[in-house]
Amino acid sequence: MKAFSVLGTLIHAPVLGELEILPAALVEVDGSGDISAVHRSNSESHANLTAQARQEDALIELSDSQYLLPGMIDLHIHAPQWPQMGGALHLPLYDWLQQCTFPLEAKYADLEFADKVYSSLVETLIANGTTTALYFATIHLEPSKRLAEICVAKGQRGLVGKVAMDNPAECPDFYRDASTEQGLDDTRALINYIREMPGNESARVLPVVTPRFIPSCTDEMLKGLGEIAKETNCHVQTHCSESDWEHNYVIERHGTEDTNSLNNFGLLGNKTVLAHSNFISEADMQLIKQQGSGIAHCPLSNYYFSNAVFPARKALDQGLDVGLGTDISGGPNPSLLHNCNVAVTSSRALEEGVNPELPAEERGVPGSRINFKEAFWMATSGGGRALDLKIGQISEGYAMDAMVVDTAVSDSNLITWDESDDLENVLQKILYNADRNNITKVWVQGEQIK
Amino acid sequence: MKAFSVLGTLIHAPVLGELEILPAALVEVDGSGDISAVHRSNSESHANLTAQARQEDALIELSDSQYLLPGMIDLHIHAPQWPQMGGALHLPLYDWLQQCTFPLEAKYADLEFADKVYSSLVETLIANGTTTALYFATIHLEPSKRLAEICVAKGQRGLVGKVAMDNPAECPDFYRDASTEQGLDDTRALINYIREMPGNESARVLPVVTPRFIPSCTDEMLKGLGEIAKETNCHVQTHCSESDWEHNYVIERHGTEDTNSLNNFGLLGNKTVLAHSNFISEADMQLIKQQGSGIAHCPLSNYYFSNAVFPARKALDQGLDVGLGTDISGGPNPSLLHNCNVAVTSSRALEEGVNPELPAEERGVPGSRINFKEAFWMATSGGGRALDLKIGQISEGYAMDAMVVDTAVSDSNLITWDESDDLENVLQKILYNADRNNITKVWVQGEQIK
Repeated sequence: MKAFSVLGTLIHAPVLGELEILPAALVEVDGSGDISAVHRSNSESHANLTAQARQEDALIELSDSQYLLPGMIDLHIHAPQWPQMGGALHLPLYDWLQQCTFPLEAKYADLEFADKVYSSLVETLIANGTTTALYFATIHLEPSKRLAEICVAKGQRGLVGKVAMDNPAECPDFYRDASTEQGLDDTRALINYIREMPGNESARVLPVVTPRFIPSCTDEMLKGLGEIAKETNCHVQTHCSESDWEHNYVIERHGTEDTNSLNNFGLLGNKTVLAHSNFISEADMQLIKQQGSGIAHCPLSNYYFSNAVFPARKALDQGLDVGLGTDISGGPNPSLLHNCNVAVTSSRALEEGVNPELPAEERGVPGSRINFKEAFWMATSGGGRALDLKIGQISEGYAMDAMVVDTAVSDSNLITWDESDDLENVLQKILYNADRNNITKVWVQGEQIK
Repeated sequence: MKAFSVLGTLIHAPVLGELEILPAALVEVDGSGDISAVHRSNSESHANLTAQARQEDALIELSDSQYLLPGMIDLHIHAPQWPQMGGALHLPLYDWLQQCTFPLEAKYADLEFADKVYSSLVETLIANGTTTALYFATIHLEPSKRLAEICVAKGQRGLVGKVAMDNPAECPDFYRDASTEQGLDDTRALINYIREMPGNESARVLPVVTPRFIPSCTDEMLKGLGEIAKETNCHVQTHCSESDWEHNYVIERHGTEDTNSLNNFGLLGNKTVLAHSNFISEADMQLIKQQGSGIAHCPLSNYYFSNAVFPARKALDQGLDVGLGTDISGGPNPSLLHNCNVAVTSSRALEEGVNPELPAEERGVPGSRINFKEAFWMATSGGGRALDLKIGQISEGYAMDAMVVDTAVSDSNLITWDESDDLENVLQKILYNADRNNITKVWVQGEQIK
């Protein structure tokens, strides 16, 4: 790849709660797609380096209406549920899995179907600025490989897990690993395949050990997956304390909560991402922090399947690595910008409470709100930290995973007003009203994929 | 206007909780823009009438990916706050008004500024399928006229109110009616102007008596406005029981709640729309129903400014005419489709509760959820009923206020799957993921304005 530079207004959030806004910054990207330097407009070398890049025909100049932002990092997404997105939202978690979701996921034994759906999904996510996605695939090995191949082909940073679920008491006959051993073997096989996959020499696509959640796995499976994670130093993802039902199920079966239980099986490491985690206690938070694991907050799906709002403020205040997930199809929107907004509003709901019949002082949990800067941090820096990858910021040493948002495209609800909008406000308006049409360029590892 | 017909799949919700889905329906629109007949595909005259319309070059044929839906009815929107949309969301209602909103609204004394902003707003709303909007303008007469003129010019069904606010204790010196009398005179003047306005012979644009809310008005003003409403048989709009502060303010000042107080001033009639109404009691609901007034539920702005979620399920179950409002800029999104989704999720938050530290049985208000069909009803039929206008359905005798949503446009997150999506699901997916690009045609009173 040829090295290049981008000249334009850069907005990102390396530090929780703060924005770094650099007008006319020069971002240098090296031949391997990493950011080698970020020069402020007033830095000594800025003018010379800009001129040089221009001369070498290696300068991308943004217009006044264009902003360089980090790409979005989606920490939780069920690829096979894509056709169901926007439907099947009327049932509680357990019934939704049994009646709608497991039957749909079972269809991915058909590789052609997998190919069609996964291509559509990855294209849509890229169009929405999602440069990294942490995917649950299905129980099937070959279709899971196909998802990884599609990520490579389309250039997205995809982390892909074959879903492990072998517990006959909780998984239907038509959608369950053939045996514990088969589930473990297929998990290993996918890890090896992705690591050796043609076109993936740079390890842009990564394998993930993926127990669906404790209810769907036998203890033997959880133990085996913990061992694989350790041996292979692989990422791990699973659902954690998602709903009353799931949370209580684990307490009943293991005599402790999800976090502890996962830790006991060796599944809570610094490359682990726990989806949801609505019902984690302060002790759980401490354990998660101590182990360096991350949390995928899925604010939209909380409303449908979690029975409560994840206390994002509290988790952030404790220093946890919290990112955002769409949780397609539990969350019916593929845009992580949209989920930033829902993260803000759901935190306000938690702070204020929702029931007007209660007195104000009994209604909510004071001090629970997060603001748009913190939501943006979660969608970018927080996601990168949760994954232990150098992504989510436009800073030296980070991968060039970024997007350009243009506030001046036609047919858009994103409208800024020069006389009243400072750059902080522009970002806020981008979060609230940019849609995929406003995202005019997307890079992953320096490769332009939109 | 030349009569015409539309042939295509019609989806609307004349009855709360039900969808009427008519594939290949023939909708006949007469020369005044009203729907003269809707013929089902199996009706006797369907084939002949279709052939006849085609022969007369008066047939619009929708493709398989296009759906005919009623236009969206936005029951609550502050036109002057458009530049602020997506910003200024960090303060509680009282401070937000004083620090951000009143200073912005004061700027509309400048007619040129008003012209620029209002044109942008009305265009954006039309692009998003909003065929009818119930607008708060500002305290200024001429700029309020301008908003009405822009609605006429662009073809939107606009209901426009000059905001009345004369209470020196609650309104700043720089943004207040010069006197009670001036406020009343300007209200009358706007009513007369709109009713006589060139181009508005069909009364597509209507005037609205608009006390901002009780705190901002003296009793004399409220009394005078009630008299004007009665004399002129005009629509009325105001905020009702929006936040703890506002609700308690009225109880303290008038010894009763907003609903009763407004009724005492003659402001609660069958053409009244009450915005928010979060804290209304069951007795208030009964009074609102008895008077035939409507409610503008603004689910997105609830999170920022209302301290609670409006109990939509309860109000609908009591038979109230509830529609939806964006509440720009208290709600930072101009799309009523988006607000349909938020209406669903906020009702789920009310049902389930939000605080994971509470036991499940103490967390929420069971039975509070609404579903997407009910949200769609509110955005269309409910809005029409609240306004006492024949809009919101595609039925004989209703105005042809409608839109075409195309699920096959490129660069869209709205994706349907023939093998798994029935038409009910298609509508659900439209609500969740259609954006303005999917809205390919908009009619108001039979006039195509997009």
